[in-house]
Amino acid sequence: MTQLPSDDERLARAALSRLMEPSDWIGLALVAVAGPFDALRIATGQMTAGHGLQAELLRTLDRETTTGTTQPLSDALERWAPRVKDLAPERDLAVVGRLGGALLIPGDAVWPAALADLGLGEPLCLWARGRFTDGIPAVGATVAVVGSRDSTNYGNQVTGDISSGLVQRGYCVISGGAYGIDAQAHRSALAAEADHVATMAVMAGGLDRYYPAGNEELLRAIASRGILLAEVPPGAAPTRWRFLQRNRLIAALASATIVVEARWRSGALNTAHHAAGLGRGVGAVPGSVYSANSAGTHRLLRDGSATAITDAAEAAELAGPVGTALEPGTLETLADHDGLGVDDLLLLDALPVRRGSTVDKLAIVAGIPVRSVLAGLGRLEAAGLAVPDAGGWRRGRRG
Amino acid sequence: MTQLPSDDERLARAALSRLMEPSDWIGLALVAVAGPFDALRIATGQMTAGHGLQAELLRTLDRETTTGTTQPLSDALERWAPRVKDLAPERDLAVVGRLGGALLIPGDAVWPAALADLGLGEPLCLWARGRFTDGIPAVGATVAVVGSRDSTNYGNQVTGDISSGLVQRGYCVISGGAYGIDAQAHRSALAAEADHVATMAVMAGGLDRYYPAGNEELLRAIASRGILLAEVPPGAAPTRWRFLQRNRLIAALASATIVVEARWRSGALNTAHHAAGLGRGVGAVPGSVYSANSAGTHRLLRDGSATAITDAAEAAELAGPVGTALEPGTLETLADHDGLGVDDLLLLDALPVRRGSTVDKLAIVAGIPVRSVLAGLGRLEAAGLAVPDAGGWRRGRRG
Repeated sequence: MTQLPSDDERLARAALSRLMEPSDWIGLALVAVAGPFDALRIATGQMTAGHGLQAELLRTLDRETTTGTTQPLSDALERWAPRVKDLAPERDLAVVGRLGGALLIPGDAVWPAALADLGLGEPLCLWARGRFTDGIPAVGATVAVVGSRDSTNYGNQVTGDISSGLVQRGYCVISGGAYGIDAQAHRSALAAEADHVATMAVMAGGLDRYYPAGNEELLRAIASRGILLAEVPPGAAPTRWRFLQRNRLIAALASATIVVEARWRSGALNTAHHAAGLGRGVGAVPGSVYSANSAGTHRLLRDGSATAITDAAEAAELAGPVGTALEPGTLETLADHDGLGVDDLLLLDALPVRRGSTVDKLAIVAGIPVRSVLAGLGRLEAAGLAVPDAGGWRRGRRG
Repeated sequence: MTQLPSDDERLARAALSRLMEPSDWIGLALVAVAGPFDALRIATGQMTAGHGLQAELLRTLDRETTTGTTQPLSDALERWAPRVKDLAPERDLAVVGRLGGALLIPGDAVWPAALADLGLGEPLCLWARGRFTDGIPAVGATVAVVGSRDSTNYGNQVTGDISSGLVQRGYCVISGGAYGIDAQAHRSALAAEADHVATMAVMAGGLDRYYPAGNEELLRAIASRGILLAEVPPGAAPTRWRFLQRNRLIAALASATIVVEARWRSGALNTAHHAAGLGRGVGAVPGSVYSANSAGTHRLLRDGSATAITDAAEAAELAGPVGTALEPGTLETLADHDGLGVDDLLLLDALPVRRGSTVDKLAIVAGIPVRSVLAGLGRLEAAGLAVPDAGGWRRGRRG
């Protein structure tokens, strides 16, 4: 188990997120092998990677990717070099901080555990704005509703019905903040009455600007009442590469991805394929066989990668039991466990409901080391699942 | 191998088809065990079933059905008795004959081999009108296009596009002759230019009347340019039971069943389930999630029993290689073999392409008895696959 992350690590990862593009496999492997501090030193030329580290880097890359290069690190160093002089992680953190945001990094209590399913592709960090301090909605309580930018009236109507129905069922609707289906999904989620975070937008560019400009008002509302996330630092432009990589985050953060409308070739299909690859549910909304905007969803239905979804109830069913069991009790109980690692689950089960228990006792009951209990209590407390009591800890209720 | 059926057998089966409802398991088992002649004698009270026959009947029923009665035959005899006095098979045959039709029975060269897939549920006979003398289109060249009676404009348009596209690809479009999707399927198939039989209607009532009356003109056109089939004799009313049983014939006669529009509960779904049970392809056309007429097709897509079909090419692909390979050569070669039994396939392969071969030689080459060669040659000749040549037989070309 890791300690709660330090401010230094936050600074290092902020810097790394500006140096390295999303899904930069060499960079991600370097961080995995050398840790964020040495990775940053190596990436910025302050330190040289030894033979042992280079060999381990190659082994890590071999295991998880096909890079097709024998000199991965030297290629990457060339790629990163031009950006070194622009590094100013304190400034980036300050920019986002002024917007009420923060940088989330692995190990944070609110870090979405579901992103670990991306393996080496797990992002280095997430820039966040909005209502994230109580935690990013767990994967089991999140459904992605995505689709093409040039949506039809039909697509907008279905998106609205599904999104508001999902929010009413306790889900958070996640999308990409784009025009068309995305915007409709966010808008309808915000319009539905809910105490929980109703919608979350994962952006392809930096969170200091609203892009696309026509969605500024909507994105502003999400930044205030929902959550905005981005893997790239403030000021980063939403490039095509970043759009495609952003899609993997949407897929990983949601228990199911519903494609409402998509043309034959569409970014929404890319998100759907990411979701399928991660073992998440994939849904596609049927439409007229004469609508080009349904050609992509029908393609998903035909190739067997998606389930036909015609309303919010079916979307919730695809997302998993949280959605089908509408009793709030069941929903909360399941949501409690969502996104927790094995040790934290053991610890959660060990926490007494009424009177607090000491760390030593918890370690014995949970069967995990004292340092794991300490680290886990930090995460569970941040998630509202553990509360200090009688000189020890007892169970809390999330949210 | 059986001999070509006699006129007496035709008379017996005509009578049996009036006595027994479609899928009367006791009746079908009785015919399977005792043969049509004794079955008719027993069914009409002219003969009593011995213990041995009754035991075999029970074994046959146990093997293929669950009847839930210990006295199956006596129950059935009671059921059949009231109809005995109305038996007039010669009259029925004459009625259909005056309409240019005939009674087809198993063993006839034009009997659709695909119906054997129904097992004990294979119909006792088929009353036929229209262009059936060159053979009922084989299962590999037939696609069923079915749907609800109260079709929408959307449903009609898709039906028309799929049906005419299928006919252009060499398929025969089969349907149920009802209002709505069925009528549109037949109409568009007839309107498409084709040398082959473009459409076939399997009716739930007798072929001496046009039902529903509003489709009279259409059904008359099918009787002249296509094929009308029914399991029930002239004069038989289209009851609900007969509609449901008729659906199994549509499913069995087609290599794939496409449901264009269907409500949540619809007879078309019944046809689709029959098709799935027979291992035939099942397709469903997507539509608006707000259309009640697409609720049934979406249901099929969701429960995984149907493939999404958006145009004729996809329907043809579902139906099998005949549809995907549009070269006429491939199409004919494959169609040649469709619907033939194992012995006839062996015989077909044994037929020389250029100069005729004798029956004795064919028996040796094919490895089947002389009597099977003789019976098979009758069927192959009727199908245009064998032609007399040089005192023997050579291969012909169907069509």
